[in-house]
Amino acid sequence: MKKFINHVDTLLDESLRGFAKAHADLVEVSFDPRFVRRKRAATDKVAVISGGGSGHEPLHIGFVGQGMLDAACPGQIFTSPTPDQMLAAAQAVENGKGVLFIVKNYAGDVMNFEIAAEMLDCPSETVLVQDDIALPREHDIGRRGVAGTVIVEKIVGAAAEEGKSLAELKALGDRVAENTASIGVALTGCNVPALGGPTFELPPDKIEFGVGIHGEHGREIVEFASATEIVKTMVEAIDEELRPRRGQKALLHVNGLGATTLMELYLVYELAHEFWSQEGVDICRSLVGNYTTALDMAGCSITLALLDDELIRLWDAPVHTPALRWGI
Amino acid sequence: MKKFINHVDTLLDESLRGFAKAHADLVEVSFDPRFVRRKRAATDKVAVISGGGSGHEPLHIGFVGQGMLDAACPGQIFTSPTPDQMLAAAQAVENGKGVLFIVKNYAGDVMNFEIAAEMLDCPSETVLVQDDIALPREHDIGRRGVAGTVIVEKIVGAAAEEGKSLAELKALGDRVAENTASIGVALTGCNVPALGGPTFELPPDKIEFGVGIHGEHGREIVEFASATEIVKTMVEAIDEELRPRRGQKALLHVNGLGATTLMELYLVYELAHEFWSQEGVDICRSLVGNYTTALDMAGCSITLALLDDELIRLWDAPVHTPALRWGI
Repeated sequence: MKKFINHVDTLLDESLRGFAKAHADLVEVSFDPRFVRRKRAATDKVAVISGGGSGHEPLHIGFVGQGMLDAACPGQIFTSPTPDQMLAAAQAVENGKGVLFIVKNYAGDVMNFEIAAEMLDCPSETVLVQDDIALPREHDIGRRGVAGTVIVEKIVGAAAEEGKSLAELKALGDRVAENTASIGVALTGCNVPALGGPTFELPPDKIEFGVGIHGEHGREIVEFASATEIVKTMVEAIDEELRPRRGQKALLHVNGLGATTLMELYLVYELAHEFWSQEGVDICRSLVGNYTTALDMAGCSITLALLDDELIRLWDAPVHTPALRWGI
Repeated sequence: MKKFINHVDTLLDESLRGFAKAHADLVEVSFDPRFVRRKRAATDKVAVISGGGSGHEPLHIGFVGQGMLDAACPGQIFTSPTPDQMLAAAQAVENGKGVLFIVKNYAGDVMNFEIAAEMLDCPSETVLVQDDIALPREHDIGRRGVAGTVIVEKIVGAAAEEGKSLAELKALGDRVAENTASIGVALTGCNVPALGGPTFELPPDKIEFGVGIHGEHGREIVEFASATEIVKTMVEAIDEELRPRRGQKALLHVNGLGATTLMELYLVYELAHEFWSQEGVDICRSLVGNYTTALDMAGCSITLALLDDELIRLWDAPVHTPALRWGI
């Protein structure tokens, strides 16, 4: 496994140092404990904080900035951050209106954010993102949080900027999360530096349908097929879950898992757009690119988020972060 | 080779259709002949047009929009576009002030852009980008154009928007191109759909120093080493070429070639930044991410562009394209 690294133990901090320098106008990085915060602290608003294992960049650190997150806590690769990170981040950015945590549904993240919330001496709420429909709703650890997280973070971040209360943001975040569904497909595994190789291997003629962003097993390993056939299975699964009505406005997000070209992602977008257009769904917003990666996995996910006028307005609101920027 | 494609012959058009839909607010795509143009045509300015083989996305089509390109002509993967594409694009966007072509130095591109310029019945100039220092300056086909192209396109695009003349833009583009140097390193080859596999293969313990963005052979195949050692070789090569003085302002661009994680790119940025900071160079602007890719190659390039106050102002000027956006 060839990577641009010096040592597994120093990779995260060396990378964060580069991130801090490349975006010195926007963010500040604390190293002990590790968190990324806005350079210009927001005042008089609920602090919106997320975090999770590293290896999914730009999620979450790339979304810290005006109109989105106030802080993000990066764990080691594919490893939850620890409660002291969330606690320190919250203490650094909280400004009297409370803290909203946006947490992807993984056992370690959920537990550690809960511990941090209990230790925090200010009001807090948590929005749990579980948009990955690969697992059934009643699965014993619930559904995983994947690429839909960026949509929750963008919309909730914009509403926080407008001065919405902690209770309003919690309700808004839950509403976005409930109306967002994702499914991923892996063409290859991903190489984890600490393992020195891939988490899993797929035969040349097989793909993993419903893969998670750490290479977790999905619904099934199926035959490799044409893009049209693969995308059809993906969008039908999402469509069955969300059941958008004709005329429903929606955001279509095609996310690269790391090693898949933009050419392919736009082709996937075209096929998914075609499907929903024929169903009468109004795909009025789009996001195509690598936003929630799984290190260097070849593969992609499709996310559909049902929108209304309020959510469209919040999606369109100005944002200025390292990885997502418009209107500023 | 597993990819999200239906057929090699339809990949480009299916992808362009998705690109057109995902960015319908910004661009329009013509399919016969193929070019991408701004949706809202600019008036009273020099038309800035680029193009080249596909497989390097977001370059060039992702840079069409206000403040950057007026049009871009995508060829098939790793294949020059044909003169009729540049001609049709120029006729579509030229508005009385002439056309500036920005061309990466590859024999096919140079020839085809020249033919188009001759067929065009309006004034035109060409800026040739040859920032890849892997080959010696006196190499018989000259040096290749690689990741520095995005910097030329951004700065020239901003100046065109300000109303600069064709002659001024030609001089400006040449000045930026001459003060920009890049070097790439491949950890793996890239999978070309028409070949059904990689252009070249590297043993597990070897890397290609000075690789081109189509997998062209570079300076030499060397032993895989630590990020610090690899980056040291890269930045020393650039430093020797540009010889920045102490206090020199510069833009540092770390570009992913396709399958390399952002974590690694920021780590490379950190090491390169450290080197030039110690040399007294003022790295005042940065760009980190996948901007000039080589399909799914694992690897990266480092680009240094020497800046002055005018170039900084033009780099910072508002831009609104699918892949680069700020200030709007």
